[in-house]
Amino acid sequence: MGPEGPSPALIEDGRFFLPGPTEVHASVLQAQSRPLISHRGSEMQALWARLQEGMQGVLGTSRPVWISTSSATAMMEAAVRASGAERVLCLIAGAFSRRFARIAEASGLVVERLEVEPHQAHAPDEVAEWVARVGPDLVTMVHCETSTGVLNPVADLAVAIRRESDALIVADSVSGAGGLPVHPEAWGVDFFLTGSQKALAVPPGLAFGVVSPRFVDRARQNPARGLYLDPLVHLEAQRERGGPMTTPAISCLFALAVQLDRMESEGLEERFKRHRKMQADVTDWMRHLRSSGLEVERVAADPFASPTVSVLRLPPRLDSDAVVRGLAPSGYAVGRGYGEWRDGQIRIGHMGDHTRAGLGGLLEALTPAFRSPGSTA
Amino acid sequence: MGPEGPSPALIEDGRFFLPGPTEVHASVLQAQSRPLISHRGSEMQALWARLQEGMQGVLGTSRPVWISTSSATAMMEAAVRASGAERVLCLIAGAFSRRFARIAEASGLVVERLEVEPHQAHAPDEVAEWVARVGPDLVTMVHCETSTGVLNPVADLAVAIRRESDALIVADSVSGAGGLPVHPEAWGVDFFLTGSQKALAVPPGLAFGVVSPRFVDRARQNPARGLYLDPLVHLEAQRERGGPMTTPAISCLFALAVQLDRMESEGLEERFKRHRKMQADVTDWMRHLRSSGLEVERVAADPFASPTVSVLRLPPRLDSDAVVRGLAPSGYAVGRGYGEWRDGQIRIGHMGDHTRAGLGGLLEALTPAFRSPGSTA
Repeated sequence: MGPEGPSPALIEDGRFFLPGPTEVHASVLQAQSRPLISHRGSEMQALWARLQEGMQGVLGTSRPVWISTSSATAMMEAAVRASGAERVLCLIAGAFSRRFARIAEASGLVVERLEVEPHQAHAPDEVAEWVARVGPDLVTMVHCETSTGVLNPVADLAVAIRRESDALIVADSVSGAGGLPVHPEAWGVDFFLTGSQKALAVPPGLAFGVVSPRFVDRARQNPARGLYLDPLVHLEAQRERGGPMTTPAISCLFALAVQLDRMESEGLEERFKRHRKMQADVTDWMRHLRSSGLEVERVAADPFASPTVSVLRLPPRLDSDAVVRGLAPSGYAVGRGYGEWRDGQIRIGHMGDHTRAGLGGLLEALTPAFRSPGSTA
Repeated sequence: MGPEGPSPALIEDGRFFLPGPTEVHASVLQAQSRPLISHRGSEMQALWARLQEGMQGVLGTSRPVWISTSSATAMMEAAVRASGAERVLCLIAGAFSRRFARIAEASGLVVERLEVEPHQAHAPDEVAEWVARVGPDLVTMVHCETSTGVLNPVADLAVAIRRESDALIVADSVSGAGGLPVHPEAWGVDFFLTGSQKALAVPPGLAFGVVSPRFVDRARQNPARGLYLDPLVHLEAQRERGGPMTTPAISCLFALAVQLDRMESEGLEERFKRHRKMQADVTDWMRHLRSSGLEVERVAADPFASPTVSVLRLPPRLDSDAVVRGLAPSGYAVGRGYGEWRDGQIRIGHMGDHTRAGLGGLLEALTPAFRSPGSTA
């Protein structure tokens, strides 16, 4: 039971454990079959106000939330391009943090990369040292690296950066926000972003951005911000019209509204606790397997393990295809490793509306693959 | 009956006649309540292939179709930014063609504007003259200007432009494609774009782009194309993976697949004829009103009237609020005039799955407003 009333029906028998898109509750999917409304009328304004208020809660901010019809990659680009920055330091430890560097290069910026091993989080002191040496006007980081399941200490990193520099700080919390507490303002993040299809458990199609006054000031000096990826014009439209600048993915907005009700009904604190417990359940399950002499470990070191996604290193003789194929008859889906780790890792998205009961079912279904002869090194 | 078999159930009693988003058939909306799938698996590849083939048919092209999760405004920006153009000529006759100029300016291009009266289409000779004088490397135009209901002769304009210049040609067919025949290749358009929520009658959230080899060549020389609005990286992902580059609006893709089936079942030719007939029905209705001494006229001159959206000038003493309010009890919705024409015009979107029967109901419901004492000048 959440503190606000009866717990909403979560997904007790989930099967779809990708690290995104995650499984979406039937009632949220069903909201997308509602007839459309005008994107300029009073009904949209009421919906928009509801979404604003709800997303401010989820994103731990009192700032207006830019609700964009796009994937979160577009928000990453918006942060980089609109900022007007010329020299960016990208903190890299996996595929999505690396994408920032690709976007920045494709946008004509000078890019410096601080790469750490993919099982590690970034260390504030090292980051501070790099910032002092490189002199960036923008620093990008990924809060929860979906490719590795590593959680970065965004607040500590931001403090370290600000100690050395007034560079703008961008944090991608795509698989974080909605699954754990986030505080862009208190953390000192200038552009905080996420997407709809991960820990929010809403269908993909929406992305969210929160910008600081500092970001707005810097962006104003950039005359070539474009339109669709310019937070300023969207936030201005929201302020003036109480709605979106262009026609949004209206059906996704309906889904988000239903999901915000459900999240608030469970209570955000309860939701975050549930995610931490699912993470612990994976840890316990791995310990149990290892106590039987089986090999399995989380890529992320314990202090940095994400509560929303666990990336597991497979034993040498077990590959991700075998795991995925082994699960298929029971209807379970997990992700393969990302990119270069495709074969040797699997990724379990225990986020959104998934429950300990549902995750328990998955882990039980996963166990035989690890026990199979091929898997004992 | 369409040539391919039984006519699909269209919307015979439509009420939602906005010029976009338009009314979406219940079966298409319902497709959005399907459980999500991975954006990287074989199911997505099969879906993507289906959408490609279907959209190639609708867009009259054999080129790959960039399916973007965004509004069509993002495609307009993609055309302008990715092209690498420095000097753009914007053909303007309404709000959406003007948006191209705003985007180009916000992207740092030098912008020249050829503006004609909003009831007019652009004249090829005048355009050719401007192209010769201005020397643009990009020309933007809107095929069907949703703010005025004027259809531009894209093919003739493109011929005129090419006579004078090798400027890239961008055509926005947001409320055109899906409602009338389009031929980006035969017309010589280098970047042809549309959105999902107009004549395609799919919920908003998707936009589509078709680029010419000439556009690709020019864009390759632009090192600062970014990522999300770069057609080249998306088309490359489609080629290499048979799917999207980033997580798309999956529920909207489901809706599009169902709608393509329905469109093909009716037959595109039948669909286009139906739109022309709805346009003629509006013409006949206006003629009937005028024969009773009532004032009403289409903004667009007859040869340039769009088959998908009719914008009507109201009598001086009737304003759009009164019309919209008058319709509300019967559940009908039409659009007010766009921007500066908000009060003095209404816009009827007779597009997508709307039928002559449904439109007839709307026109009948509209008639009393024109007959009311306040409306006789």
